Formats: sequence, C-alpha cells, structure tokens
Amino acid sequence: MNLSASDITLFLVGISVMLFFARAFGEISRRFKQPIVMGEIVAGIVLGPTIFGMLFPDFFNLLFTSSKNISIAYEGLTTLAVIMLLLVSGLEVDLSVVLKQGKTAVTTSLMGVLFPFVVGFGAAYFFPELLGIVNIEQKLVFALFVGTALSITALPVVAKTLMDLNIFKSEIGTVIIASAMVNDLIGWIIFSIILSMLGTASHGLNFGATVGLTFLFIGVILVIGRKLINLVIPAIQTKTSFPGGVINFILILGFLGAAFTEYIGIHAIFGSFIIGIAIGDSAHLKEQTKEIIQQFITNIFAPLFFVSIGLRVNFIANFDIVIVLVFLILAFAGKVIGCGLGAYWGGMKKDDALAVGFGMNSRGAMEIILGILAFNFGLINEKVFVALVIMALFTSITSAPLMTIFLNRKKKSFKDLVNKNLIIVSEATDKTEVIKELASLCAATIKLNAEVIYEEVLKREEIIPTGIANTLALPHARLNIQKPIIAIALLKNEIDFEAADNIPSKIVILLLTPKTDNELQLKLLSEIAKYFGNKEKVDELLADFNPQSVYQKLVK
Amino acid sequence: MNLSASDITLFLVGISVMLFFARAFGEISRRFKQPIVMGEIVAGIVLGPTIFGMLFPDFFNLLFTSSKNISIAYEGLTTLAVIMLLLVSGLEVDLSVVLKQGKTAVTTSLMGVLFPFVVGFGAAYFFPELLGIVNIEQKLVFALFVGTALSITALPVVAKTLMDLNIFKSEIGTVIIASAMVNDLIGWIIFSIILSMLGTASHGLNFGATVGLTFLFIGVILVIGRKLINLVIPAIQTKTSFPGGVINFILILGFLGAAFTEYIGIHAIFGSFIIGIAIGDSAHLKEQTKEIIQQFITNIFAPLFFVSIGLRVNFIANFDIVIVLVFLILAFAGKVIGCGLGAYWGGMKKDDALAVGFGMNSRGAMEIILGILAFNFGLINEKVFVALVIMALFTSITSAPLMTIFLNRKKKSFKDLVNKNLIIVSEATDKTEVIKELASLCAATIKLNAEVIYEEVLKREEIIPTGIANTLALPHARLNIQKPIIAIALLKNEIDFEAADNIPSKIVILLLTPKTDNELQLKLLSEIAKYFGNKEKVDELLADFNPQSVYQKLVK
Repeated sequence: MNLSASDITLFLVGISVMLFFARAFGEISRRFKQPIVMGEIVAGIVLGPTIFGMLFPDFFNLLFTSSKNISIAYEGLTTLAVIMLLLVSGLEVDLSVVLKQGKTAVTTSLMGVLFPFVVGFGAAYFFPELLGIVNIEQKLVFALFVGTALSITALPVVAKTLMDLNIFKSEIGTVIIASAMVNDLIGWIIFSIILSMLGTASHGLNFGATVGLTFLFIGVILVIGRKLINLVIPAIQTKTSFPGGVINFILILGFLGAAFTEYIGIHAIFGSFIIGIAIGDSAHLKEQTKEIIQQFITNIFAPLFFVSIGLRVNFIANFDIVIVLVFLILAFAGKVIGCGLGAYWGGMKKDDALAVGFGMNSRGAMEIILGILAFNFGLINEKVFVALVIMALFTSITSAPLMTIFLNRKKKSFKDLVNKNLIIVSEATDKTEVIKELASLCAATIKLNAEVIYEEVLKREEIIPTGIANTLALPHARLNIQKPIIAIALLKNEIDFEAADNIPSKIVILLLTPKTDNELQLKLLSEIAKYFGNKEKVDELLADFNPQSVYQKLVK
Repeated sequence: MNLSASDITLFLVGISVMLFFARAFGEISRRFKQPIVMGEIVAGIVLGPTIFGMLFPDFFNLLFTSSKNISIAYEGLTTLAVIMLLLVSGLEVDLSVVLKQGKTAVTTSLMGVLFPFVVGFGAAYFFPELLGIVNIEQKLVFALFVGTALSITALPVVAKTLMDLNIFKSEIGTVIIASAMVNDLIGWIIFSIILSMLGTASHGLNFGATVGLTFLFIGVILVIGRKLINLVIPAIQTKTSFPGGVINFILILGFLGAAFTEYIGIHAIFGSFIIGIAIGDSAHLKEQTKEIIQQFITNIFAPLFFVSIGLRVNFIANFDIVIVLVFLILAFAGKVIGCGLGAYWGGMKKDDALAVGFGMNSRGAMEIILGILAFNFGLINEKVFVALVIMALFTSITSAPLMTIFLNRKKKSFKDLVNKNLIIVSEATDKTEVIKELASLCAATIKLNAEVIYEEVLKREEIIPTGIANTLALPHARLNIQKPIIAIALLKNEIDFEAADNIPSKIVILLLTPKTDNELQLKLLSEIAKYFGNKEKVDELLADFNPQSVYQKLVK
C-alpha cells in the first residue's frame, strides 16, 4: 500500500473539486454558446496556482502537491483520461468522409505544418532573444523546437471543440480532424528528431524506425485491423455479455494501440485515436455501446484531464508580455494563414477555409505536453513555458468563437442557399399553382410532405400576400426542418401577388426556414427583399430568363 | 512528469492484460453459471505471481512491479475502482426494502458479527500457534484481529455476486446487503480499535470520535441528504447538460462521501456506498444515467480491482495447509451458522436463511484489505496473510454456487409454485372449457393473452392427452414467460383426459413454464406426476374438495 489514508482522502477530495469546477465552468461556457472544453480549461486555471492556489496556497498545496504519490496517481489517471478521450474521438470519425476529403486534408495539413514551422523556425533562429532562448548555443535546436511548437495542433481539444459545436461529422469538421491527424503525426515526428538531437528520447528506437513503425501501424490498423475488427465485433456481441464484452474489447484495443505508439516514441494518444477510427468504422457497433463509453469518458475523464492542465503553472508569476505576444502573433499568423491557404488551395470556399484555419489553430493539451517535455530537458525556461501555455489556451479558447463567425457568415447568406436543382421555369397561371409546384420540388429535398409545405405557405400567403417589388414574389413558411431552403420559379405567365408597386410577379422565391429560428427567417427575407429592391439588378438577373443563368448570376 | 514513456507503455499494457484476463475468465465463469466476479478474481490469481508470474517472471515483473510509479498509478486507479463499484452498488439498493427487512437485517448482521467473532477470538486466544501467531505477547490483539477477520463480509463482492445472480433486489438480496452493511460497519469499527491498540491508526481522531462521526454521517446522509438530493436532481437534469451534469453530480458526491469516511478512519468505500444509497433512492434519477455509470464501472473499473487482488500474492510459496484449513473451517462455521441462525430468528425460512448465510460468507476484497493492513503492521506473517486471502477467495467463490443450491432448492419444488389465488372449483363439462378457465386465470398473473395460453396448451393436448393417473390431468405448455406458474381446477363434473388408467379426471393442474427452460418443465411434470402416483395422498388431498384445503395440504 503506497497510498496512505490521508493520501486517499486528499486524492478523492481533489478529484471531486476538479470535477466540480470543470462542470461549473463548463456549464457557464455552454451558456455563452462556447464549447464546454473551454470552460474546463479555464476551470483548471482558476483552480490552479494562478488564482485559487494563490488565494489559498495551503489548501491548494494540501490537495494537489503535498504528496508525490498523489501526483503520480493523478498523472496515471489523466494519462488514461486523454488516451480514452482520443479513443472516443476516433470512434466518431467517419473514415469514408475523411478519405473523401483526401485532397483538402493533404493540402491543409501540409500547409498547416510547413508554414507555421517556417515562420517559427525563422523567428527563433534570427531573433532568439525575443523568444526567450535560454542557451544561445542551442539556437538550432531551439529554432526547430519553436517551429514544431507552432505547427502542432491539439487533436483532443479540436475534437472536443468540433463535437461541442456539433460539426464533427460535417465536411469542415472532417477536413479539420483529418488534417489535424496528419499534421500531428508530422509534428510529433519532427519533435522526436529534436528529442534525439538532445539525446533524450525515451524509447530505444532510432528516428527512422519510429517513422517507419508509425506508418506501418497506421497502415496495418486502418487497412487490415479495421476489417478484422468488423468481423470480430458481431461475434463478441453475441458470445459475451452485452454490452460489457464490447466495451472491454474497445478499451483493451485502445490501450494496446496507445501502448504501442508510446513505445515507438509517438505519443500514446495517437495509438488510441487510430484504433478508435478502426473500431468506429464498423457498422456492427451499436449506438448504445458508443453512448455509454462516450458519456462516461467525456463527463468524467475528459474534465479531469483538461482541468489538470491549468493546475501545473502560475500564470502570473511567470508572465512575460513580450514573449507571450510574440508567440501569440506567430501562432495565429502561422496556423491560420497556413491552414487557410492549404484548405483554399484544396478547393474550399474562402469562409470555410478560414473556419478550418481557426479550427486548426487550437494548440491545447498537445502544446502543453510538448512544452513540459522541453522544459524538463532544459530547452526552454519558465517564461517560454508560460507563453506556450497561454498561447495554447488562447488559441484553443478563441478557436470555437472565431470558427463560429465564419461558419455563421457562410450559413446565413441567402445566396449560399440557392440550389441549382431547385430553380424551374413554371407555366402556372395562378398563385396556388406555382406554390404547389415549388412545394413539391422542395418536398423531396427536405423529406417533408408536399401538402404540408403547401398548406403552411398558403396560410401565410392568405394573411399577407407576399408580392414584394420589381416582379418578385416571396412566399415563405417556417417548418419543422433543420436547415433553410430556397426554391425559385421563373414564370412564363405573370401572376399577381398583390405587390405594393402593383407590378405582377415574374419570379417566385419560396423560402422555407426552421421553425426554431425566427431571426434567420427575418434576416433571409430582408436580405432577399433588399437584393430585389435594385431594379437594374433584377432586370439583369432575369435578362436570359433561364434557370442556369439565374443561378450563376445569383451565386457569383 | 513522474511517469516516463516506458512507465506509460507498461501501465497501458498492464491494464489491457488485466482487462483481457478479467473478461476471459469472467465469461468462462458465466458459462458455468457463476458470477462474473468469481472469474475476475481467479483471473488475478492466474495472472499474478502464483501462475503467470511464476512461469514468466521477467514479463510479470516488467508489467506490474518494475516501477514504483506504476504501482502507485495502479493503486490510485483500483482505489477509485472499488469506491465507484460501491457507489454503483449503493445506487441499486432500494432503501424502502432495506428498511422493511429491518428486523431480519438486524438479527442477521448482529449474529453474523458476534458468532464468527467469538469463534475466531476463542480459537486464536486458546490455540494461537495453530493460527500462526507471530508474537505470542500480542495474543490479545491477535485474537481480536482474527475475530474481526472472521466477522468481516465483503460488501463489494457480495454486491456483485447478488447482481450477477440477479437477486440484488429480491428479499434475500436486500437482507444480505443490509446485513452486510451493518456487519461491515461494526467490523470496521472493531478493526479501528485494534489499529489504535497497535498505535497505528492513520487518522488523527480517537475511537469515540470515529464511531460517533460514522453514525452521524449515516444519519445525516440517509435522512437529510437523501431528501436534499431528491430535490436537487431534477434541477440538475434540466439546467445542466444531460446526462453529463447528473453523472458528474453522482460521482462528485460519491467521491466526497468516500473522502469523508476515509478521513474519519472508516474505509472510503462506506462513504460512497451510503451516498449511492441516498442518490439511488431518488425517483427522479433516470435509468439511462444509471445504465451509463453502471456499465462503465462494472465493465472497466470493477474488473481492474478484482484482478488486482490476485496480483499481490504468491499463493504457492506461502501456502501452509494447516493454517489455511483452520481459517477456512472457522470462517465457514462462524459465518454460515451465525448469519443463518440470525436470519432464521429474524423470520426467514430455513433454505432462505442458509442462502443468506452463504451469501454473507464472502470475504473477498475487504478481508484482503484488512489482511494487508495487519501484515504491514507486523501483526501477521505471510502464511497467515495467504491463508486469509485464500479464505477470502474461497468463501467468495463458493458463495454463489452454495447460495444457488439453496435458492434453487426453494425455487424448483412444484409445491412452492402453488398459489392460493390460482385454485378454483370448475363446473366445466369438457376439456377445452376447463383449460380455457385456467388459461384466463393465469393470463392476469403472467401478463399474457389468455387466447395465446389456451391455444398453446390445447396444441400440446392434441398431440398427447395429459390425463396422468388417479384422477389427475396435467395440461401444460412452454411460453414466453420468466417464471413457472401453476393453476389448479377442482372439477365438479368428472372429465375424461384419456388417462392410461382410464379413470376420468377430478383435478386439473395447468403447468406453464418458460420457453427457455426445458429441464424445468420436465422436472416439474415428473414431480407432480410422482406426487399423484400415490393414491392415498390424492384421496386425502381431494377429501374436502375445496381450494383452501387443497392449498394447505399441498404446501404443508
């Protein structure tokens, strides 16, 4: 028995306090529509030596630093926590989508590593003092380290941010996660070169072996392992107690994968992440099983890990504004420009590419792990370490809000909603006829009954006719749907929609928006009305009077 | 960073190996209809120094003993594991049932502590050498220790055994769990006296304070805390993210309760158990939440804990047959007789009381924790420690099978299935009519459609008529039900069921058994047929020809 009764007491109280702070701050950030993980990291800073530890040093020291045994127990627990967190993140990855994003993921991740690396390496090599170098003779290694530090992306924070924003499985989410994977692999490989240059690599393998084994591991697990797992899962589900057997299977494989990658010198979390992907890909895996694992891990283990980050440092005592700002600017510039350009070159729209850039900007836990290693090996001092941590936290915390801006900007323009397949030429001769046509057109796309759509739109039409101006009619309704949708009819026969300018309509735009979002409907209505307020624009739009030309003029 | 890369690698491999062995042996014991926990404990012995560690000492030492840091990490994890296991067990306790079992629980637990204590104390005091005493001058303390060791019941093993046998919520289950609670409280209080006699108590409180605070804690949590929790849970469920908020709430409270009891000198697991009971009592707690917590804990944490027990000792090197046998005999005699008598005096039937005795006989983890403490303080040597561990394991392993014997003996006699309310006098004049009556009678009780029962029975009847002998007809069917059921009709008009002896039937017994249990049907059919093979018995049974007298004669 290494843990005494008082160790156990303190360990339990410490965990309770960490979970409580994590939940409290997590809920606060949820109120502010921020990802819960952000609150959990802030909880750690508040609870750690920076605030709580400064105000009540005795209590803080008693809880978290009084016994080396307790520290080790915490470390074992948070290590498992981050490994399981990555395993769960992996379960959520849809490999087919990742592969589909192949080109974008490659350009994004390559640019997301190369550009920040060059920026960081250059800055540290030519202005080492500005970045707080300790030993000028280690300039090359230091510059390599800074380059790596800037090119790292925090897979677990990114994953949790994407889950919290509910875009984990979207195109942007998968591009980001796929890029972050490739990005981190490259980053950690570079870092292992640095470690071997310092002569401090903890594993017994040389650099080439590590890289080779890493790629071998990824290949074997994702190609052969994935198929084997898919074959084995149904057998486990029927032959062992359910869901216990599968839950064990998932965790055992995850831990073994983590052990393997840790052994070959890449961080343990890569192993569990890759295993997670391979398991999550199986169609036989039941939702119930995933739910149990995910809820327990994201609500108990993940918070413990994220809170533990803030417990390590006093952010005030070791704060150097110059170093902090330099690192922040380099970090933002390097990652957002690098990844943004990469995503843009990979074929994404500008706003999406920027969202990817900010999404990839999270440094979170990975940066801190890297920083702790460099700090332990004497390559950086406390101030640089604090700067790295602040940079890691700031990039992580700003990631979700900045992404949200670009995601929303994209989502809310009516032009982005215009769909080539939902523009028709209509021969209808009255209101109800053309509305019926457009309703049927939408019905297939949004999986609602055409009758339902038609009736809702007509109900609205009967209260106030929707003829706007300049030949535009804008019937609309709020329905039980997830996303707004627009369908357009060009009228062969002019129809009177009782517009204020008494001009009969030539173009009918049907706008359907989610019932839950009042603002969105108002915004889109006013946006469309504004566009059609300009007579010249409308004349130009309707000049050719065919769907294809209307589409191109609208989205250009 | 206290844990090196190789520490982490070994820690992860170790956990994987433990989980794998636990699952494999757990599934094997499930096949043999034993509780999974038994397999998990055996997995630990196989994996530990006794077998695997002896065959592959290098690999075993590398995995489990090479680094002190790894040992501490394991200890932190298994400590949390057993605390959470008790929390989950607590959630499953239905307090109202426990209170209803009040009298039986009190007599069972008192006798279950006193009798084994007296047996153990007496044996150790008068024959100390036989029990392997180290220092004869400590005879009194040693005797007190042996008495306590014999009177301990392993709450976590008992709880898991009861869950595995699916009788946790039954009358017997709640009597056992309630008794085990009281039993353990008394046991641990005595043990804390011993520790204070040795001058080694780890807390700073005196004995009186510990006892006082323990009762205060139990009272406050179960009376006030329980009501507060019930008020708070709905708020948490609606105002925080679900189920994350409630899961956090449950674990935070559980850990704090554990910390408190550990602090006052009672083991941590009591605190989490009491908190678990208070939370589980809330009607607002959703099944989904319980399911997530329970599945994760019983499938990941519990196995780690149970396997870790076997990892501690080499059972062969320190095996002393005399000491082992003496402890085994004393343990069985003390506990089974003590608890059995207590339960019997508390109003239970003989078989049930014996089942309770064997149920309470599990010493499992608690004995081992107690043994480790005594061993660390020099009160006992390796041989006594091994004897205690073997006794703990053997009593735990035999607990389920021995309970099963007495539970089955009770369950499988057809007389126990006879139900006062399912005996009627029928005026039917043919087969189908009386079967229809009996089918309707059963339908309400087993929640099956009377038509379904009727048709199944008739189908069987058409293949082979069920007239047996001596005026008995025994129509039967196997249905989609959980438990067997018997309904009886006394016939005013004799009906021909084509019995081999050509005697028309005066009594019809309808036997419905679960589809899944072929043996059970055969057993009950032959049992009933055998009973009615004796003409004198049948004449006596039907002498008064009214339901009440038939019932009393059958169950007497």
